[in-house]
Amino acid sequence: MASKPSIPKGTRDFSPAEVAKRQYIIQTIKANFEKFGFQPIETPSFENSETLMGKYGEEGDRLIFKILNSGDYLNELNDCLLQFVFGISKFYQDYYKNFDSYSEDDLIVNFQKNIKNYASGALKYLQNTNVTIDRFSKDLFPLIIVEVGDNEEQIEKFLNLEENELIFFSKAIIGRFYTELKPKYLTDWLTEKALRYDLTVPFARYVVQHQNEIEFPFKRYQIQPVWRADRPQKGRFREFFQCDADVVGSKSLWQEVELVQLYDTVFTSLGLNGVTVKINNRKILSGIAEVIGASDKLIDFTVALDKLDKIGEDGVKKEMIEKGISEEAIVKVQPLFHFTGSISEKIEKLSLLLATSEEGMKGVEELGFICDNVTQLGLSTAILDLDVTLARGLNYYTGAIFEVAAPKGVAMGSIGGGGRYDDLTSIFGKPDTSGVGISFGLDRIYLVIEELGLFPETVTASSKALFVNYGDAEAFYALQAIQKLRAAGIKVELYPDKAKVGKQFQYADKRNIPFAVIVGGEEMNSSTYSLKNLVSGEQMALDFEGLKKALE
Amino acid sequence: MASKPSIPKGTRDFSPAEVAKRQYIIQTIKANFEKFGFQPIETPSFENSETLMGKYGEEGDRLIFKILNSGDYLNELNDCLLQFVFGISKFYQDYYKNFDSYSEDDLIVNFQKNIKNYASGALKYLQNTNVTIDRFSKDLFPLIIVEVGDNEEQIEKFLNLEENELIFFSKAIIGRFYTELKPKYLTDWLTEKALRYDLTVPFARYVVQHQNEIEFPFKRYQIQPVWRADRPQKGRFREFFQCDADVVGSKSLWQEVELVQLYDTVFTSLGLNGVTVKINNRKILSGIAEVIGASDKLIDFTVALDKLDKIGEDGVKKEMIEKGISEEAIVKVQPLFHFTGSISEKIEKLSLLLATSEEGMKGVEELGFICDNVTQLGLSTAILDLDVTLARGLNYYTGAIFEVAAPKGVAMGSIGGGGRYDDLTSIFGKPDTSGVGISFGLDRIYLVIEELGLFPETVTASSKALFVNYGDAEAFYALQAIQKLRAAGIKVELYPDKAKVGKQFQYADKRNIPFAVIVGGEEMNSSTYSLKNLVSGEQMALDFEGLKKALE
Repeated sequence: MASKPSIPKGTRDFSPAEVAKRQYIIQTIKANFEKFGFQPIETPSFENSETLMGKYGEEGDRLIFKILNSGDYLNELNDCLLQFVFGISKFYQDYYKNFDSYSEDDLIVNFQKNIKNYASGALKYLQNTNVTIDRFSKDLFPLIIVEVGDNEEQIEKFLNLEENELIFFSKAIIGRFYTELKPKYLTDWLTEKALRYDLTVPFARYVVQHQNEIEFPFKRYQIQPVWRADRPQKGRFREFFQCDADVVGSKSLWQEVELVQLYDTVFTSLGLNGVTVKINNRKILSGIAEVIGASDKLIDFTVALDKLDKIGEDGVKKEMIEKGISEEAIVKVQPLFHFTGSISEKIEKLSLLLATSEEGMKGVEELGFICDNVTQLGLSTAILDLDVTLARGLNYYTGAIFEVAAPKGVAMGSIGGGGRYDDLTSIFGKPDTSGVGISFGLDRIYLVIEELGLFPETVTASSKALFVNYGDAEAFYALQAIQKLRAAGIKVELYPDKAKVGKQFQYADKRNIPFAVIVGGEEMNSSTYSLKNLVSGEQMALDFEGLKKALE
Repeated sequence: MASKPSIPKGTRDFSPAEVAKRQYIIQTIKANFEKFGFQPIETPSFENSETLMGKYGEEGDRLIFKILNSGDYLNELNDCLLQFVFGISKFYQDYYKNFDSYSEDDLIVNFQKNIKNYASGALKYLQNTNVTIDRFSKDLFPLIIVEVGDNEEQIEKFLNLEENELIFFSKAIIGRFYTELKPKYLTDWLTEKALRYDLTVPFARYVVQHQNEIEFPFKRYQIQPVWRADRPQKGRFREFFQCDADVVGSKSLWQEVELVQLYDTVFTSLGLNGVTVKINNRKILSGIAEVIGASDKLIDFTVALDKLDKIGEDGVKKEMIEKGISEEAIVKVQPLFHFTGSISEKIEKLSLLLATSEEGMKGVEELGFICDNVTQLGLSTAILDLDVTLARGLNYYTGAIFEVAAPKGVAMGSIGGGGRYDDLTSIFGKPDTSGVGISFGLDRIYLVIEELGLFPETVTASSKALFVNYGDAEAFYALQAIQKLRAAGIKVELYPDKAKVGKQFQYADKRNIPFAVIVGGEEMNSSTYSLKNLVSGEQMALDFEGLKKALE
């Protein structure tokens, strides 16, 4: 390989400094997750395809990375296909030739039995596959029928094919198989595993699979990478970490209260003071939909309302009308256009607006409980705000909806989000399990902390001192000290080669190592170490205890 | 999905207790890597296929998980194939029909130009692909030629194909393409990314790609999962973590000395006292090969010699002779059959045995330097041993070879290994970059620590106390205390629901939470908290400061 090596689009290498900063964020999140009683789990990077497919909508399915079945699978598959198609084609010739000797019932039974037999014979070529006998009749058999054709001339031609011509014929069928089968069916033949797309579906799968080992309510956190075949663009990657904390198995709204506190605690720990935790409730949105009399227009409504700051009341109303929301409806929700004041004032306004909607009032009650308790318990640095335009994951969330905005002045999308979902695990056969969770957007949080210069300097601190290498005897003397310093938990290193001292200093400098320890003949004779501050240039001779103290 | 969900064979879910234990090992390794001056990097989970393919031998290539090109790729590919094959087939008819009107030179030029044109036209169907125009003429064109045939009758038949017959013909070619193309070429058409198989090749790629940003010698560590499509079996997984520390850019043998110390330090930190760090040198093995006069028999030789304990001297010699090693050669290496004593005695024996081999003597010298210095500097709990049968990664290592055996009495394969390699990065275009590294076998280390009962109890400690939930007023009172305890770094949690107290205690018990805090009306009135030790059953009333002290 002559060309300069590279990595796939949308993926990243992380340098030591970047890993250190990312780990600082992850460790902070992790420590606080645990302080709040969440426990870590980890799931495999790839799941069985059927676990993931169909859970994220059609667009989501397209964005799932599928893993090609491994080993000699492609060879095996082609042997399998040829075996089946050739066998069935021969049988089909025979069937036509002896058409008159069968009763109609016989024919059908015989036919189905043969397809099954040939499929199960062919399947023996495929080790470890999810392909079913059913797939053969669904995906391959129709291709054969069409290829044979249905007028007399075509059939006559087919019946006269000799063995070698039948092989050519079979290969053409396989050509059709690859070229005409819908990619989603073809994918079933080629792959049975896929990289996880998020942490939520694997978590649901985990909960159902291990339900007998789990104590509910189950407070779990999970910090692992996910993969999406999205078109890469600035700030959007094909591999990125998700950091999720969820509780399943309890409907208690105290969870929502604690999750707001968790956001506050994590962001305060990271020095990111003044984030806004926006809260809404799915039931409020349903209530609004009832009031405007158009549940199908709810997204259009919230999207338009969200632009209030940008395009003003008239602009918003114009957009709503364009989207087909009636003037009458807009009048009804007039209070939302001047939706200001304290949270309790906002809740008051909502309870007037939604008085006629049972579900809406349930939302008001939930929101009231959460906001009251959060407010009375107090937040350290975060600001709680009620935002009725917040509608993320509308079809997914059933109660509270959260989103976190970076501190004012930082241009960045949401740096966290979450909410309550009432039936996550039913897709895997465990109904009635309510859950609520939040997640942290690692990459964006990183960018915000970087922009605000809030990474502590110690995060990227490398070794405390570099021992200069003057030769083997000196290196041995140095390593005796290094050994003891490391045992005391101090990060120090020896320059491995006897190189020019300038080069060694330069190495320390580039690596941001603040001290050099010089050990030559003089130091060895006097059992001392010359410690040089590489920033100030200061240098002093120390005994081992003095050295240790200086580097601690 | 009705059936119970599952995960792919060879992969694992990790429960909270397992994650905690794994993290304990990883954090210990990480902390010591950093203490020794190694810096973390991370690389993407998948690499471009060409980065990985061909780096692990033919068997390795088979075990690499390939990722299917995403989106509508299969559709696009089939459009692309049909476009090319149909176009070329039509051109081919025309070419035959007008054969006489061309000069021979014209014909060839015209031919090649057309293949290129049709290939580049067809390629437009494939967005984001690594498939080259060259692949079309290599993989597809020969199939067309063969299918047309070369006797007059066949050609005549081909020339008379009408448009719709030519489509059928093209599909048969595509059938051949899928069924006859060697899987490794077909893989090129279907995938262009693959999951990383180890951390070494991505590291080499990283070093070459970022060489201008790196300060050499570069001491990096990397702890990330790798994936192998190995047949899953006990203790062998398809996804597992590797923990590697390497230095590239220095030939200094002090690195080897420090790496032995690093093994000693990590295993001592983990409480795994008495591991054996076995050391050998590739050059010693080359020397032995020279002495026995059969470098092609070296592996057979070391494999047989390794069985000395099991089958005795006669058994080993019998096996060597069976493998074609001469009696004369066996006499020459007689000292290896009684290869006992201290390391320096062993080195002495080797220097006599290998006196005639220049490379062997270089190995003796290197081994002497490393072992002398390690011995003089002293190890905490690990035992250094020279093992001339150690030959792991023979074709890869060029100097020192390391392997770590679990403490005596534990039946377990090696729990670590490594060595020096002289030219890792040349595959990516950066020659002459020596490296040396070691790795830790996380899964096996886990099993050994588990077997010896050495995981500290604190590793899996969950919350320190569960606050019992008696209702909303009590929960609010509890959360005021919880908030302050968490701020002091104490892990506590509130049972989210007002459930039967017995159920709440049971939850604490199953979660291994040692204390319950009871707050009812009485406690609220007296501003106290009843702390119940769930093991002893003891209970006492405390004020907040007392509670905090008790839980610290």
